[in-house]
Amino acid sequence: MQVLVASNRGPVSFGRAEDGTLTMRRGGGGLVSGLASVAAGTDLLWVCAALSDADRTAARQDPEGRLDKAGHDTGAVRMLDIPEQTFHRAYNSIANSTLWFVHHLLYATPTAPHFDATFRRDWQAYSAYNAAFAGALGQDAEPGAKVVVQDYHLSLVPGMLREARPDLRIAHFSHTPWAPPAYFRLLPDDIGIAILEGMLGADHLGFLCERWAEAFLACCDEILGARIDPVAGTVTYRGRTTRVGVHALGVDGPELRERAGQADVAERIAGLREQVGDRQLILRIDRTELSKNIVRGLAAYWELLLNHPEWRGRVVHLAFAYPSRTDLPEYRAYTAAVERLAAEINDEFGTEDWTPLILQVKDDYARSLAAYQLADVLVVNPIRDGMNLVAKEGPVLSEKGCALVLSREAGAAAELSDDALVVNPFDVSQTAETLNQALLLSGDDRRNRTKRLADAATALPPGRWFAEQLAALD
Amino acid sequence: MQVLVASNRGPVSFGRAEDGTLTMRRGGGGLVSGLASVAAGTDLLWVCAALSDADRTAARQDPEGRLDKAGHDTGAVRMLDIPEQTFHRAYNSIANSTLWFVHHLLYATPTAPHFDATFRRDWQAYSAYNAAFAGALGQDAEPGAKVVVQDYHLSLVPGMLREARPDLRIAHFSHTPWAPPAYFRLLPDDIGIAILEGMLGADHLGFLCERWAEAFLACCDEILGARIDPVAGTVTYRGRTTRVGVHALGVDGPELRERAGQADVAERIAGLREQVGDRQLILRIDRTELSKNIVRGLAAYWELLLNHPEWRGRVVHLAFAYPSRTDLPEYRAYTAAVERLAAEINDEFGTEDWTPLILQVKDDYARSLAAYQLADVLVVNPIRDGMNLVAKEGPVLSEKGCALVLSREAGAAAELSDDALVVNPFDVSQTAETLNQALLLSGDDRRNRTKRLADAATALPPGRWFAEQLAALD
Repeated sequence: MQVLVASNRGPVSFGRAEDGTLTMRRGGGGLVSGLASVAAGTDLLWVCAALSDADRTAARQDPEGRLDKAGHDTGAVRMLDIPEQTFHRAYNSIANSTLWFVHHLLYATPTAPHFDATFRRDWQAYSAYNAAFAGALGQDAEPGAKVVVQDYHLSLVPGMLREARPDLRIAHFSHTPWAPPAYFRLLPDDIGIAILEGMLGADHLGFLCERWAEAFLACCDEILGARIDPVAGTVTYRGRTTRVGVHALGVDGPELRERAGQADVAERIAGLREQVGDRQLILRIDRTELSKNIVRGLAAYWELLLNHPEWRGRVVHLAFAYPSRTDLPEYRAYTAAVERLAAEINDEFGTEDWTPLILQVKDDYARSLAAYQLADVLVVNPIRDGMNLVAKEGPVLSEKGCALVLSREAGAAAELSDDALVVNPFDVSQTAETLNQALLLSGDDRRNRTKRLADAATALPPGRWFAEQLAALD
Repeated sequence: MQVLVASNRGPVSFGRAEDGTLTMRRGGGGLVSGLASVAAGTDLLWVCAALSDADRTAARQDPEGRLDKAGHDTGAVRMLDIPEQTFHRAYNSIANSTLWFVHHLLYATPTAPHFDATFRRDWQAYSAYNAAFAGALGQDAEPGAKVVVQDYHLSLVPGMLREARPDLRIAHFSHTPWAPPAYFRLLPDDIGIAILEGMLGADHLGFLCERWAEAFLACCDEILGARIDPVAGTVTYRGRTTRVGVHALGVDGPELRERAGQADVAERIAGLREQVGDRQLILRIDRTELSKNIVRGLAAYWELLLNHPEWRGRVVHLAFAYPSRTDLPEYRAYTAAVERLAAEINDEFGTEDWTPLILQVKDDYARSLAAYQLADVLVVNPIRDGMNLVAKEGPVLSEKGCALVLSREAGAAAELSDDALVVNPFDVSQTAETLNQALLLSGDDRRNRTKRLADAATALPPGRWFAEQLAALD
C-alpha cells in the first residue's frame, strides 16, 4: 500500500560543507520519527518544500525535486522548489503571521489583523503553494493511495486533491490548536470558508485534543452551516462526510531516553550541577514564541521571590528561550521583553553568590535533555498550545521526580492535568503560588506524579500516532 | 410599585459655575431617556456613583448622598460618594481595562492581560464598589421592589443584593457584548466564577442581541457547569433559575428628530454644506475607542481612493472621532494612529481644492446631528460592539436616504443587516469595496433602505426597552 505524506518541512534538510558540497541532515520531531517507524514496510513518499538555498540546490538536481534515497530512513522524498517569493508570502505572511495568530488567539485586535490588498496578494501565494503540493501529490499517488497532509500550512491541499483525485484516501492533521468560531470569524469571509472547505476535502481530520476538534466542528457549524454529529465526530457538507478524530501525539520513551543517555548530555549534566548546586531547579524550555508566555512565567517567578522570601538563595530558575521567527518584529520585541525582565529579576533579587535566573537563548538540544533530568519543577505555561511536548518529555527524563506546572490551555493538559499542577496562564499570581506549591511537594509525591505523567506522556508514541491516522483511512 | 435603578453614571452630573456654585446637568443616553418616560407614574430611585469633584461635593450635602429632587425628571437620585482610590481602581482598572477588554476581545494576548498582585488589589476595590451599591439598594428597597442594575461595572451587585434581600426582584442589563467562553477563560478562575455567580443573583438578565445572550449562556455552561435551557433561555444554578432575555435598545425617533431640528443643528448644517459642497459625504461618528475600528475604517477609505480613482474629488469623508479614556496609554496611542493615518490620506490624495478627509476630534453633539442629516454613506465598522446607536440614529435623521455600511460584529447588525451593507470589520479590502458599492447605490435604493432601517432602529425606544425589563420581573 502506498502512503504519501505532505508537510512544509521535510524529513531531511541540506546545508553546505566547507568545501561547498551539499550535506544532508535528518530532521527531528514527532512526525519524522513516526514516519521512520512505519517506513520500513511501506511504499512511502514524503512531499515537502525546499526551505533554504541549499535545499533548493538539492531539489533542482532532479526536475521534479526527487531526492536520492541514500542517507535517510524515511522513504522517498520529493522536495518542491516553490518560487522564493511565493514561499515567503505563503509561509511567513499567511501561515505564520495569520493562521498561527488566529488559532493561538494572538492578535492585538484593535489594529491587527489588517486584511488589505497586500494580504490578498499573499493569500494568492498561499493558494499557489498549496496547489503545488496538491499537484505533486496528485501526480505521484497511485490509485486509492493514502495521503496524510500536515498542518495549517497546507489547509487547502485536501480539497484541491479531492477534486483532482477523488479515488485517494486523504487525512489531514493539525498540530496547532483550532480557533473558536468567535475568533475564526476574524478571517475574511471567503478565506475562512476556503480553509474549512479545504480541510473538509479530507476523509479524516486529526487534532491533538478534544477541545481543538470541538472548536473545528463549531466553526463548520456556525460558518459553513455543515451538519455536525458531535457523538460520531463527523461533519457532513455538500454530500460528503468527514470524520474528525483525536490523536494525542506523545513521545517515544525508549528513543528519548537513549538519546538523553549519550555522552554530550552527560557532559551538560555535570556543567548544570555546578551552576545549580544544591538549590532546587525550576526549568522552562521554549522557543521564544508569542504563545509560550515566557514573560508572564518570569513575572510569576518574580512574585514568588517577592512573596516567599524563604526561597531566595535556595532556588535557581533556568530558562531556555530559543530563537524563533526573528524575522518578525513582534517576535524581536518579545525576545527583548524576555531579556529585560530576566535582567530585572537578577537586578532585584541577585546577591554576590546567588543568580536567581539563568536565561539561555542559544539552542542546545543536549543541554535541554540534561536539564530535564535535573529539574525539580518544570514550568510549561503557554497561553495556547496545540500539545506542548516539553510537558511530556520532562516527566519521561526526570531522574528523581519533577513537579510539572502546566497551563490548562496546552493540549497536553487533557492527558496530564491529574498529576500536573494546573494554572491559568494569564494569572501571574496564581502561577506564582503554584510555583511555591510545586517547590513544597514532597519527594515521594513528585516521584509518584512523575511516574504517572511519564506513562501518560508515552501512551501514544509517534509511530502509533501515525499508524492510527492511517488506520482511520481504512 | 417601587423601582430602583443602579448604574455607575447617574441621570445627572454636577459642574461649577464661575462663581463656584454647583450646577446640575441632566445626562443623555438611552437609559436616562428611558427612565424619564416611566418615572412619572413610578416611585423611582436611581443609585449612581459620584464621578467628579463637583459630584462628590453635591453628594456630601446629604449624609447618604440623596440629591435634591428639583431640576430633573428622573425620580429620586442617590449619588454614592465612593472613596476616590476605590472608585479609580474599580472603574479604570477592572471595569474599563479588564472587563471591557474581555467582552470586546481587545487584548494583545502575548503580554496582556497580566493578572498580578496589583490586579488582585484592584479587584478588591471592584468588590467594595459593588458592595457599596448593593448596600445602598438593600437599604432603600421596599419589600418586593424591583431593582434594575446596569452593565459590567456592577456585575457583582445582583448576587450581593440577592443574599441580603431575597425578597427583591432583580434584573441586570449588559450594554456590552459578552465574551465567548474561550476568551472569558482569560480571567482568573475565581474572578470569572464570581462574575457569573454575581450576574446569576438576578431573576432576569438582559442583553442587546442573541449573540451576546448565547455567549453568556455558553460561559455559564462551560465555566459553572450550570444547567442551560437554550429554548426557554434560562440558567439553573444552585437551585435558582435566572431568565435571559434580549432587549434590543433602539432610539426614540420623535425625541431625536425634535432635537435635530433645533437652531444650533441648523447652523451646523449650513457650515457642513459649505465644507462638503456637491460631493458625496461619507460619515463616521465614534468615540476614539479601541473597539470602534477607526484605523481600519480610514485604511478602507484609502484603498477606495487608490482602487477607484473615479471618486477622487467627488467624495468627502467626515470622521468625528471624539476623545475617550485618554487617561489610558493604549487609547492615546490609538488616537495618535488615527490622526497620523488621516494626515497621510490627505497628503497622498489631497489637491488644491479637495481635502479628502476631515477629521474632527472635538465633541460637538449638534454637529453630529447635522452630519447625520447630510450623509450619503454612514460607516459603522466596530470590531465588536454591544449595539452601536450611531447605526440607528443615522437612518432616523437622514434627509435624502443614506447607505449604511455596518460591521457584522455590532449588535445592531442583528436588526439592520437586511438593509445595511454588512462588512467583516477586519477585512479592509472588503470594506473598501463596500464603500464603493454604497456610493453607487441609487437614490431610490438608499431611500427605501433608509426607511426600513429607521423603522427597525425605532422598534424598541428606550421607554419601552426599560418597560420590557420591568415586565420581565413580574
